[in-house]
Amino acid sequence: MSTSEVVELEGHIIDSGLMERAFTVVMDMGAEFEVEEFRVGRHSDEASYCRLRVFAEDEHTLHPILHELHQSGATLAAPTDATLEPAPEDRVVPDGFYSTTNHPTDVRVDGEWVPVADIEMDCAVVVSEAADGSVRARTKVLNAIEGGDRVVTGDAGIRVKPPERPRGSSGPFGFMRGGVSAERPSESLIRRVAESIAETKAEGGDVLVVAGPAVIHSGAGPALARLVREGYVDAISAGNGFAVHDMERSMYGTSLGMDVETMEHPRKGHKHHIYTISQVVRAGGIEAAVEEGLVEDGVMYECVTNDRDFVLAGSIRDDGPLPDTITDAVEAQNAIREQAHEADLVLMLSSLLHSVAVGNCLPSTTRVVCVDINPATVTQLLDRGSAQAVGMVTDVGMFVPTLADELLE
Amino acid sequence: MSTSEVVELEGHIIDSGLMERAFTVVMDMGAEFEVEEFRVGRHSDEASYCRLRVFAEDEHTLHPILHELHQSGATLAAPTDATLEPAPEDRVVPDGFYSTTNHPTDVRVDGEWVPVADIEMDCAVVVSEAADGSVRARTKVLNAIEGGDRVVTGDAGIRVKPPERPRGSSGPFGFMRGGVSAERPSESLIRRVAESIAETKAEGGDVLVVAGPAVIHSGAGPALARLVREGYVDAISAGNGFAVHDMERSMYGTSLGMDVETMEHPRKGHKHHIYTISQVVRAGGIEAAVEEGLVEDGVMYECVTNDRDFVLAGSIRDDGPLPDTITDAVEAQNAIREQAHEADLVLMLSSLLHSVAVGNCLPSTTRVVCVDINPATVTQLLDRGSAQAVGMVTDVGMFVPTLADELLE
Amino acid sequence: MSTSEVVELEGHIIDSGLMERAFTVVMDMGAEFEVEEFRVGRHSDEASYCRLRVFAEDEHTLHPILHELHQSGATLAAPTDATLEPAPEDRVVPDGFYSTTNHPTDVRVDGEWVPVADIEMDCAVVVSEAADGSVRARTKVLNAIEGGDRVVTGDAGIRVKPPERPRGSSGPFGFMRGGVSAERPSESLIRRVAESIAETKAEGGDVLVVAGPAVIHSGAGPALARLVREGYVDAISAGNGFAVHDMERSMYGTSLGMDVETMEHPRKGHKHHIYTISQVVRAGGIEAAVEEGLVEDGVMYECVTNDRDFVLAGSIRDDGPLPDTITDAVEAQNAIREQAHEADLVLMLSSLLHSVAVGNCLPSTTRVVCVDINPATVTQLLDRGSAQAVGMVTDVGMFVPTLADELLE
Amino acid sequence: MSTSEVVELEGHIIDSGLMERAFTVVMDMGAEFEVEEFRVGRHSDEASYCRLRVFAEDEHTLHPILHELHQSGATLAAPTDATLEPAPEDRVVPDGFYSTTNHPTDVRVDGEWVPVADIEMDCAVVVSEAADGSVRARTKVLNAIEGGDRVVTGDAGIRVKPPERPRGSSGPFGFMRGGVSAERPSESLIRRVAESIAETKAEGGDVLVVAGPAVIHSGAGPALARLVREGYVDAISAGNGFAVHDMERSMYGTSLGMDVETMEHPRKGHKHHIYTISQVVRAGGIEAAVEEGLVEDGVMYECVTNDRDFVLAGSIRDDGPLPDTITDAVEAQNAIREQAHEADLVLMLSSLLHSVAVGNCLPSTTRVVCVDINPATVTQLLDRGSAQAVGMVTDVGMFVPTLADELLE
Repeated sequence: MSTSEVVELEGHIIDSGLMERAFTVVMDMGAEFEVEEFRVGRHSDEASYCRLRVFAEDEHTLHPILHELHQSGATLAAPTDATLEPAPEDRVVPDGFYSTTNHPTDVRVDGEWVPVADIEMDCAVVVSEAADGSVRARTKVLNAIEGGDRVVTGDAGIRVKPPERPRGSSGPFGFMRGGVSAERPSESLIRRVAESIAETKAEGGDVLVVAGPAVIHSGAGPALARLVREGYVDAISAGNGFAVHDMERSMYGTSLGMDVETMEHPRKGHKHHIYTISQVVRAGGIEAAVEEGLVEDGVMYECVTNDRDFVLAGSIRDDGPLPDTITDAVEAQNAIREQAHEADLVLMLSSLLHSVAVGNCLPSTTRVVCVDINPATVTQLLDRGSAQAVGMVTDVGMFVPTLADELLE
Repeated sequence: MSTSEVVELEGHIIDSGLMERAFTVVMDMGAEFEVEEFRVGRHSDEASYCRLRVFAEDEHTLHPILHELHQSGATLAAPTDATLEPAPEDRVVPDGFYSTTNHPTDVRVDGEWVPVADIEMDCAVVVSEAADGSVRARTKVLNAIEGGDRVVTGDAGIRVKPPERPRGSSGPFGFMRGGVSAERPSESLIRRVAESIAETKAEGGDVLVVAGPAVIHSGAGPALARLVREGYVDAISAGNGFAVHDMERSMYGTSLGMDVETMEHPRKGHKHHIYTISQVVRAGGIEAAVEEGLVEDGVMYECVTNDRDFVLAGSIRDDGPLPDTITDAVEAQNAIREQAHEADLVLMLSSLLHSVAVGNCLPSTTRVVCVDINPATVTQLLDRGSAQAVGMVTDVGMFVPTLADELLE
Repeated sequence: MSTSEVVELEGHIIDSGLMERAFTVVMDMGAEFEVEEFRVGRHSDEASYCRLRVFAEDEHTLHPILHELHQSGATLAAPTDATLEPAPEDRVVPDGFYSTTNHPTDVRVDGEWVPVADIEMDCAVVVSEAADGSVRARTKVLNAIEGGDRVVTGDAGIRVKPPERPRGSSGPFGFMRGGVSAERPSESLIRRVAESIAETKAEGGDVLVVAGPAVIHSGAGPALARLVREGYVDAISAGNGFAVHDMERSMYGTSLGMDVETMEHPRKGHKHHIYTISQVVRAGGIEAAVEEGLVEDGVMYECVTNDRDFVLAGSIRDDGPLPDTITDAVEAQNAIREQAHEADLVLMLSSLLHSVAVGNCLPSTTRVVCVDINPATVTQLLDRGSAQAVGMVTDVGMFVPTLADELLE
Repeated sequence: MSTSEVVELEGHIIDSGLMERAFTVVMDMGAEFEVEEFRVGRHSDEASYCRLRVFAEDEHTLHPILHELHQSGATLAAPTDATLEPAPEDRVVPDGFYSTTNHPTDVRVDGEWVPVADIEMDCAVVVSEAADGSVRARTKVLNAIEGGDRVVTGDAGIRVKPPERPRGSSGPFGFMRGGVSAERPSESLIRRVAESIAETKAEGGDVLVVAGPAVIHSGAGPALARLVREGYVDAISAGNGFAVHDMERSMYGTSLGMDVETMEHPRKGHKHHIYTISQVVRAGGIEAAVEEGLVEDGVMYECVTNDRDFVLAGSIRDDGPLPDTITDAVEAQNAIREQAHEADLVLMLSSLLHSVAVGNCLPSTTRVVCVDINPATVTQLLDRGSAQAVGMVTDVGMFVPTLADELLE
């Protein structure tokens, strides 16, 4: 073992799993460690500290280990400034660029730790100087990189802070920790989700709902509309289809041609869907359609009337699309990114595509509640290293009305 | 084409799909047909009639075609008596035995059509003479065959009558025809299921509930108990686990160790489960445990108190088992068979194993409602050729309480 | 019943299910029928004919019934020309526009039946005059409608021809008819798919592969690349992620950071993914990256080298994207539409989003083979009314290599 | 905090997660801890040691915490003998009985630590004296408890030893750690499973295969038969259906009536299934049927011919059953328990019911490979706290032949 480096771990490093992870990473990746110092927090509110020397055959082996320890929250013992390299051209990163986690992160520039703004996964970090001469650091997706941007490379001068588990009581989200299951008391669980939403609103936070077409097909549209109207939902992120189904319901009483109340098929099939788009196109957009009186209730109606933000992202499956739908994937992702960064609690309802897109932009500190009837969808959405995400495998057609009853009655 | 046979089709043979199926079978199986006579019912309430001659290369090809036409409801033009062969020994069928469908069926004995009692799929038909000299025909599973039983062989002298679709209005079950989907208005669907149950009870029919452990885990136990108490459920078919979870809930307030109200884990884990069985063993069985006051509410409590029939079938996964659990698979199947034959409507709740077992014993004329959060389970259960089966992909933890509210409020 | 209309059904109307469907539609929708004439095809190769008078309370009831009969293949007894209305403005259809099925369709203009070009579901039909004065009819999606386009409205003068089932032998696709199942002999099934592909190529047809990222992750990339190289695949339809994973494999030997051979995680995680995009951006696109020698094998490499068409459609989940990715959903859909219209056999591999998009544009006469490990995906993709679609629930990581072995060895 | 207790943790307590779990349990359950002593292993092969005092409000709170720490591997600082209470009657446990984990466990009797034989989850521990005066301890399921058995109660005098992760290299099973996914290179994964089996056999270990009917339906029967014949499979655990399908294949070339090679339905449907049972009943059982020449190949044939152990457990879904099928659930579970205790590697193939039953009886030190096309099944089977279990979501119809090729060619 001819080379070594010292890293430090500090905080609630035992119960957050950081110590375990550090030992495991070193052993798994073919290296050795020596614990140079270890001070355990004697009580639950005292931090622990560990100074670990990692030995490896060569730099080539050592480097990825340090990177991995780093991404998990360890820091180099002797911090240096972050290395900055200019992006060679638009949408091209310099070699060895640092790729972010979704945890809060600082970079060290001129001896100062600067927090990285708009943290999200799998981005580059760009450092710039503000008008007042202060240093700024923020994430940029590859597509937003401009030639000459000063991009952080390597792992030096970067500090990652994964959220620690709450001390003592496990908080409003403690109730569902440890996996996803349909075999839990459904009504009790919904009560807890309602409490989390109420708490978020009471603290002045923003609730973002990501909604798929199944919300409308399953009859949950009016309940979601109520939640928007009553101020429990601040923003909607959805696709073209969701908005069309919602307005079709208002204009024709059907969803993809099926009468939502009587479940009878007036045999108009897909036609109402196309008509809805056609009418909204003629009116000039959703807001105009509401003002004209074409659309008189539903989720989109409440968004327009109560001035809630909505983003409709286009997809290759869409009919139409509506004039409000953002058909360019890059533009749509940017609009979603803004919604995600503003949200304090995100409720994902039966929408894999849009939920993944929103989830990609979320820091690990945002609360996420994910509801779907398909356990694989819930598992995939929760699998983002976030301690703040909970999942529920249930029927969205009963979940949303029950949630609305809990919050509004 | 050197051999041929004439079959007749009669009834609503177009809209029941029988004509289509007959043509398709003949062509698929490498034969030819000639329509000798065809009279179409000119209005929806007039029967149609078709006499079809089927030509094949040889008897070897023709035989399975006639068999298939037969199973679908065609009859040989010149009916002869059914062929009866003695079973060579216990649990052994004679060669060429006739294997039943789940449709109403008659066999011809001494020139008379005798209805086959207790029709269910994949059985043999045994003909016997009653004490009063009358001829009886009934299904027997392989295991019940006794040496010497007169078993129907071949297809001659057998008449199968698949249910026709209702004329005009599509009846209480029309609402969900045509597949299974989670994307339907959940609350409206449950209202229809409630109407079907109410109607069945109003007609003096019996409702059998097949229930899996998820009914208890998901918090739906009290609602199901209410339905039993109020007379909407006449019988329960379940496994050892269901009954233990239900009584654990009454005795300890937990289900597999999790508090069903607060969802907190008192960390007793599996122990309450074992204690529950142990206590019931000590008491001498479920009825005794209820009488002793050990079990004071829940589904099993209501069954005992209100004298509802229950069958608990054992499985190799079970702990215990309870003294009431029938551990022998053959005996348990026989008990299930009796329940199935008495039921007019079967509600299958989150239980694949028991639902398949019950479904195997049901005639195609019994109404079936199948509820599960897993669409594959619903599809598998409905795939039994029954026009009377409807499925719903939803969360049983919300379905049962909503159903109880619909029926009882 | 104060109003009536006469429709005709002709062809193999019994075994195609058309007769059954016609009777059922009339009864389900609250009307009555009278069979005015019925001639049954006496043998399997003779067409049948039925003239049916449909009675309803009023025009309001009758109209949707006629529409429905129509979409299934019935024609009005006294054909008139199709009604044409100008589109009021861009992307707005005239009231009562005719919405297409995916079956071959004709419209009657000036007494002549004109086939509708580029048939696909849920489109409008636009009639125009060609340079040589001949009448043309073609489908247009809502988004392509221009103000003034002469759009077919109502059902008059339209003839829909659903594919009939093949007479006699059931053709190369007969083997999998009747549902989707994982419980079929996997190796035998793949042999049949190979035969269908070989047959399509032998007839000079085009094979389009729709591929998801799982093709690469599961190790099937090299086998698909072989099929492209050897001429069994004419075009690829995929997303940005597929192409990036494929080229990451060539450039770094990893797929999302996992070594595809050793399954070891070099712990570079997502970074190789971003590097790959970054490098291809720098090179100027996929073709340039291949020419530069950056990408030396894989599916994209073979497409470039062997001049196969590929469409990469963007989505809001994407990183990057690559310069070749079409980020606008409408443009991407148009590109997919072209691929779909040229294909004679479509192989859908583990890609729900792209497969739905392609499927939406396919006529019901194109052969489709859909492979996914998730039965729900296969079921959804097959549920398009196409007699030519077969599904297989299996592991794409073993399916593609086995298929390549079948075709190439 | 008026009461406290000291526990000790020793071994690789950081990277095994024991330290993390201990801290978390104490905090989650509303108590406090004080670290009285902590010695960290400075290198990966040195054990660590922690002495932890746990404070709680009262004994009622403290007790379950100590229990939980205990089950995870902590020991009381001052060990006392285990408490033994007589079982009050057959199948009834004394109050406060100790319920086992699936980890290696010792109990302290007369100052000596005695290993608990036949460790499996959710059992009681019974202590007895052997003929030679030595003390024995073994697990008993509730059903096996006899009145008077000396049963361990409470947590004192019990030591649980969860397996630690291997030092350094991650062993033959390292390759699939960390979850279940269909998106992994299928062929590489199978190669690794083959290596594990070969290694187990080379070490003189026993391989148990748990097989569902899908193994036969999917065409994998001959490959599994080869593995039995060539000595890679020592025992088969399955249901009645598996054996019948396997022998139907040998006797009629069909599986539930479908020709496994040509996939054509000879339209005999379920009849071959019943005939197979009937014939084997007549012969007197499977061994007799093989000897008579009725069954000439397949998995059951190879088991009989090569003298491999097989257990067929009955279920309420079965036809027949075969004379060899154990219809009593308790007896069948006992037979399965014996197989499970003898196995060194268990391969679970598409069989949820039987795999759960086998899994319930396995110690956490037995290697398990679980293969199913349904990710939910794989997840459920792996969720048993075993570090030695790996899962693979793939098509068993391709998995088994590929595995056989890897092992035999």
